[in-house]
Amino acid sequence: MQTATRHVDRMRRASSAAGADDLAAIVVAPSPDLAYLAGYDPPPLERPTLLVLRPDQDPSLLVPALERPLAIDAGLGDIVELVPWRDDTDPYATAVGLLPASGRVGLSDRIWGIQVLRLQAAAPALSWASASGVLSRLRARKDPDELDALRRAGAAADATFEDIRGLPFAGRTEVEVAEDLRRLLLHHGHDVADFAIVGSGPNGASPHHDPTERVIQAGDPVVLDFGGSLDGYFSDTTRTVAVGEAPPGFEEIFALVHEAQVRAVDAVRPGVPIQEIDRVARGVIDEGGFGERFVHRTGHGIGREVHEPPNAVEGDETPLEPGMTFSIEPGIYLEGRFGARIEDIVAVTEDGVERLNRTTRELTTVA
Amino acid sequence: MQTATRHVDRMRRASSAAGADDLAAIVVAPSPDLAYLAGYDPPPLERPTLLVLRPDQDPSLLVPALERPLAIDAGLGDIVELVPWRDDTDPYATAVGLLPASGRVGLSDRIWGIQVLRLQAAAPALSWASASGVLSRLRARKDPDELDALRRAGAAADATFEDIRGLPFAGRTEVEVAEDLRRLLLHHGHDVADFAIVGSGPNGASPHHDPTERVIQAGDPVVLDFGGSLDGYFSDTTRTVAVGEAPPGFEEIFALVHEAQVRAVDAVRPGVPIQEIDRVARGVIDEGGFGERFVHRTGHGIGREVHEPPNAVEGDETPLEPGMTFSIEPGIYLEGRFGARIEDIVAVTEDGVERLNRTTRELTTVA
Repeated sequence: MQTATRHVDRMRRASSAAGADDLAAIVVAPSPDLAYLAGYDPPPLERPTLLVLRPDQDPSLLVPALERPLAIDAGLGDIVELVPWRDDTDPYATAVGLLPASGRVGLSDRIWGIQVLRLQAAAPALSWASASGVLSRLRARKDPDELDALRRAGAAADATFEDIRGLPFAGRTEVEVAEDLRRLLLHHGHDVADFAIVGSGPNGASPHHDPTERVIQAGDPVVLDFGGSLDGYFSDTTRTVAVGEAPPGFEEIFALVHEAQVRAVDAVRPGVPIQEIDRVARGVIDEGGFGERFVHRTGHGIGREVHEPPNAVEGDETPLEPGMTFSIEPGIYLEGRFGARIEDIVAVTEDGVERLNRTTRELTTVA
Repeated sequence: MQTATRHVDRMRRASSAAGADDLAAIVVAPSPDLAYLAGYDPPPLERPTLLVLRPDQDPSLLVPALERPLAIDAGLGDIVELVPWRDDTDPYATAVGLLPASGRVGLSDRIWGIQVLRLQAAAPALSWASASGVLSRLRARKDPDELDALRRAGAAADATFEDIRGLPFAGRTEVEVAEDLRRLLLHHGHDVADFAIVGSGPNGASPHHDPTERVIQAGDPVVLDFGGSLDGYFSDTTRTVAVGEAPPGFEEIFALVHEAQVRAVDAVRPGVPIQEIDRVARGVIDEGGFGERFVHRTGHGIGREVHEPPNAVEGDETPLEPGMTFSIEPGIYLEGRFGARIEDIVAVTEDGVERLNRTTRELTTVA
């Protein structure tokens, strides 16, 4: 499909879905939502840029006057009505002219809070809701091009792990290993190396640990959680390695995390509510006696955002559909000792699951 | 001042200012506001992390359970009450417990829209306002350490310009020159190369132009607008160069932009309302007959954000105070032909102005 045609089609589907969801309009700020719908990705700064979608109307883009040429260069002039505003005018007054006179208006998740407050003040007759239902439903089911980008991002992250496991760990700092991970992500084709968690020894018990100058020791388990974006789509994978022989008690929790991860992946197929994936993983870890130490959901959707709906968490009943992609990443964290996590991105297929990460899930020993 | 003491002090000042502004609480999401107040800078993802400040109470931080260790590592455990929430619970219900029962609550500008809507739904008795008045007033007046970081960022950006003007332009693409700018920003000490606008020939008429594969030609004016962050503080400077001899009509607009910029810088001193700086620059360009082609404000505050309040724009009556830092960047844009802009960061001193960018503002010829 031509790029412009694809975006016209996506905006049309979002407008129709808004109507079905009883939204009189959807307002989308610069974010992965806007990039997905309109192919426009300006920096999310303080001047409001707002795409307004209304059922049965052509889309409009409120755009700062100085970025009108940028929007035109991005092809927006052909697919939306451009409504520029100048710095010495009130953009919210202009925005109100693009909105319905009454009803519910859905907002994209990442719109700045200040913009929500200003819109609410400028249009007190409207009520405001999240457009996330409409937009994440559209975005959750990836099309073949998107799946292909996610596969390539996954393969590049896997190649990163294959390289890093061959490098020395003992005697180097977490920051040094994290720099290697970022370098390798780029080397293997990522456009952006977005994050690289290296949690060694007791730091592995902090799921979102920020790498430090701690020198990695023989005997440390090390949690490696890294990813970035490639052609606009994210990778995100975690492997836990041991520097030589793992300490007492580690193999027990690793084995539980491994079983939880494998069984959760095997449970993926169309029609299963995504919370069931969390239940499967959590069941294994609960039964092993470490339920209290599995302090996060089992997974999150992934695509243009490293975290996007739906989530593998109790309470998210979204039924899995072919083309959905999400992480499966159970973990156990023992404060002051160590942690373990294993994470793959999976895609739901017509009759089951495809893993987008394929490196070994067994405990890997490094030097 | 010790780092922890500084953050305790900043939070206390924000709490007091909130009371004076008739705000019963301030809620701050991950953003430069949170980094400034509490020294905590987690990735702004979908799980709410919210600092709650209330007059005459100790601060609290709602934090995802899996990031509690991260917050502790950042020293937050010593200066705020940590209130963790788990993925299978409702964080907004927990947040309500930290908020007053009634009154106005101020929100930080960059909090995600979805979080505003969820807070509003969870606490319908409260009214909601922007905390920007309180927070930007605090942040606008930089302390000596902050000024020092901004000076070093400015000097690194200046060194970048001195290098780039010695490199060839003709025959290379905008993207290639932009890559050089990013490389040089890092080489001269920036931690992040945030942006590099290279608008050659007609592309210079797009103020926020995204560099393209256009090959730069002899005779092109080229607008270079670049910056990044160094120790958490931003640089942002613009110079317009000519590749050999500039085309007919260019020198006239360049001279106007130059005069507007110089006169606006000279008008900076304590007590002057910042909109006056815009009036001075705009007056010069209006008088020259190009007012309609100066399509943006004259400048914006800068610090932990590349754009932050106050703005040099009609309607912003903030009186200048010593320690305030902002850009002065008039421009003229002639669609289809070329553009010109000159930008310095300035700091307000006790009795006048200090330029944080010092490279020549005259038209520079490049090869």
